[in-house]
Formats: sequence, structure tokens, C-alpha cells
Amino acid sequence: MRIDVLTLFPEMVKVPLNESIIGKAIEKDLLDVEVTDFRDYTDDKQNHVDDYPYGGGAGMLLQAQPILSAYEDTVAKTADKYPKGKVILVDPAGKTFNQQVAQELAQEEHLTFICGHYEGYDERIRSIVTDEISLGDFVLTGGELPAMVMIDATARLLPEILGNKESAPSDSFSNGLLEYPQYTRPAEYQGLKVPEVLMNGNHKLIAEWREKESLRRTYQRRPDLLENIELTAQQRHLLADIKMEESEDN
Amino acid sequence: MRIDVLTLFPEMVKVPLNESIIGKAIEKDLLDVEVTDFRDYTDDKQNHVDDYPYGGGAGMLLQAQPILSAYEDTVAKTADKYPKGKVILVDPAGKTFNQQVAQELAQEEHLTFICGHYEGYDERIRSIVTDEISLGDFVLTGGELPAMVMIDATARLLPEILGNKESAPSDSFSNGLLEYPQYTRPAEYQGLKVPEVLMNGNHKLIAEWREKESLRRTYQRRPDLLENIELTAQQRHLLADIKMEESEDN
Repeated sequence: MRIDVLTLFPEMVKVPLNESIIGKAIEKDLLDVEVTDFRDYTDDKQNHVDDYPYGGGAGMLLQAQPILSAYEDTVAKTADKYPKGKVILVDPAGKTFNQQVAQELAQEEHLTFICGHYEGYDERIRSIVTDEISLGDFVLTGGELPAMVMIDATARLLPEILGNKESAPSDSFSNGLLEYPQYTRPAEYQGLKVPEVLMNGNHKLIAEWREKESLRRTYQRRPDLLENIELTAQQRHLLADIKMEESEDN
Repeated sequence: MRIDVLTLFPEMVKVPLNESIIGKAIEKDLLDVEVTDFRDYTDDKQNHVDDYPYGGGAGMLLQAQPILSAYEDTVAKTADKYPKGKVILVDPAGKTFNQQVAQELAQEEHLTFICGHYEGYDERIRSIVTDEISLGDFVLTGGELPAMVMIDATARLLPEILGNKESAPSDSFSNGLLEYPQYTRPAEYQGLKVPEVLMNGNHKLIAEWREKESLRRTYQRRPDLLENIELTAQQRHLLADIKMEESEDN
């Protein structure tokens, strides 16, 4: 997969992407990421990329020209190996990013992320955009961090990227439930003990405990998730137990 | 405000935080950010910070000790100037981050973010956690990127951090609506023109156009937002116009 990022803050994007698991994927040529500073493409003699809004108002807007020119150049450079692909504008007005969107993006061969900054951007930037995606209902100083979040969530789903250290199928959300509590050594730390059941080697009991605690956490914190999945007979049984236990606790 | 970040990937956090507007706030001493590598606090002779899960299963878990020791040290170092404050675990099982959570965090004097990585972490890390926050319903390779997003959204709300370049009150969501389309020079680019109304200098018409387009965008893309706000008489009138126009278009 090829990923292009158009930004005014290339270091902000390059360094985090080169760390961690995504960086290893780039090293191994599983992922081809290019970060482009669209200031390099401005026609303006003073290298400006922003200007005052028509109609007045506070703040500056990113102009369409530098971003559209940078995009045309990345398309030209990658045309022999990759299709144009999706062009993603990180914007609070877009559809909300979630695991399903990440899975859809992971099917693509080429993604381009446009990172805005300052007050906003000229509406005509949207002429090249295929997808507007929002990370959530909050405001950030720029599009770089949300673009990196989307790249991370997407890239880790690509084949061969996660090594033995992580395994996507056991993640939260992949089975529709939150993850069960986990423990590693030591067995007791600052008076806090690992639950007995995890120490006795009975795999059937361990699996049942984990399924139950996964259900309990989901029931307590994100009951909305339970509405979206079809529970097995065993899960329905465990959930009934949990509800009884919780009502006794109160 | 003091922000501590506990992570295994300090460069991943430091570089982006030092760029852009948040970096300028750090330079001006408006914000005191310290990034701590909790590997430096492990008791393990080989500097390991993770171990196998009790009860079996794929992957490794972060141990409680390095993180709890790193946290104790940051508390000791900051005790003369800051309260312990909130300790935030970035976790998909937490409450969902949004602009209201950012506003709440912006009221605090001291925030500590714990960034997990690998498969997960020992449950006992939660003993120091005051708030579990999720960035959304998706899975990432680590907690660094979501922590940075939360820091960015929070820090930009602090007094004096946004200069003239940005002004928080005109943001998306601050009035409950998505932002109206904006345009800057040139008046025509690749055949795409700036709407006439923005060029004629009639401030009353411009304000009305913007309010209407803000409502239109919200109605088209995020009608759920309209349910959460009390519309003015003028907004209700404009919205009725929009609904009529949209139904004529279809």
C-alpha cells in the first residue's frame, strides 16, 4: 500500500510514523509512505500558503493552489505503480472514523491524506477529495494527528504488518466486546493479586472467566455494543449471571 | 498546566508536540510538558517491561511495575508545583473523547497520560488511573497517537495558547453546527469560482449566507447535531428554506 500525506508539518508526521510497528512495516517495504510539504508547491513568491477569507472574518485560510499542485505531483510520481486511490480530507464535518472505516481503507492500494491547519481551508480543496473523515466530535490545531491515527489503525490491518507481538483477532471490537482484564508477573504487586483462576492452569475455566469478564466490562461500560452483536447461548447465560451479580452488589 | 506522558516511545510524542501551536505554547512556558520513558524505571535486569499473560494467550502484556514506578517519580518531581491531578489511561474501554471532555481536561492543573502498547497491560496499572478515555471505536498499535490528540484538543483551549491565527469560538462544534464553506484568493481557480455573495462586501448578506450554509452542511451531514441545539427563530426559518431547496434538488 502507498500512503501520501500532504502537510505543512512534515516532521510532525515522519517521526511518529517511523517509530513503532508502522515504522517497521515501512522498513520492510510492506508500506510505502511519503510525506510532502505542500509549501514547496506554492506559486506565491513569499512562500505563503494562506490568505484572508473572502467575505471577512478572523484567521487565515489555506489556499487551494499549493495543495492541488502537490496532489497532482504525487499522482504523477506514483502513476506507474499505484492508482489515484482515495483522497481523504481530515475534517470535523466528515463521517466518523471507526474500525469499519479502517477495514475499508485497508483494502485500498493508495491513500492520500490532506492535513489542514490554521482556521480552515479554501472550499475548492474539496474538488479532489473522495472521502471526508472526522476522528470525532472535537477540534484540533491541525489534521496531522488525526491523519496519523487513521494511518496507524489502517496500516496495522494489512497482512504481515503485525508480528507475533500483537494479534489483531483478539483485539477489543474485533468480536464486538471489550477486552477482559489481563495480568502478568508478579503474582502480587503492592498488595494487588492476580485472580486465582488464571494461575491454576485449567484452560476451560480460564476461557470461561475471560469470556465472562469481557462481557461484564462491556455490560458495565459500553452496553450499546451488546445491542450490535448476536450473543451465543453461553454468552446469554453468562450475561444473566453478571446482571444478577451486579444487582446484588448495588 | 503540567502534562506528563508515560510511554515507551518518547520521540514519537516529543517531536509532534514541539511542532505547531502546542510547541509554541511550550516555548512560551504556557504549558509544561514532560515525556517519560517508563522503560527507564523497570526493575528487570534486561530492561524488559513486558511479560507473558497469566492464564496463557498470544502476545505480551506491559507489567505494572515500570509504569507505577515512573508515575510515582513524576508525582514526587512535580509535587511542589502541581497537584497529582488526573491520570488518564488511553483505552478503547474508556469513555469516548469529545469536545466536552477536552473542556473538562482544560480546567485541570496536571494531567498524566499513560500510553499502552503491545497486546495490552497488566490490569493493576488501573490502580493509579482516574480516567479511562477512548478516542473512538477503533484499534491502534499504541496509546501515543490518541494521547497526543487529546493533548492537542485540550491544550488549544487554554488561555493565550491560540494566537490570532486561530480563534476557538468560530470552530466547528463550538456553536453546535458544522462550519460554513470558506474561500480565499484567487477568485477563480481551475474554473472553480468563489460564491458571488462573499465578494460584494455586504456584511449582512454574508452573515446570513454563512449561517445558512453552516446549517445546510450540518443538516446534510450531521443531522444528529441539530437535535442537540436550540435554534433561533432565524435559524429555524433558514432551515425550512434549506429543506425545501434540498427536496427540489432531488
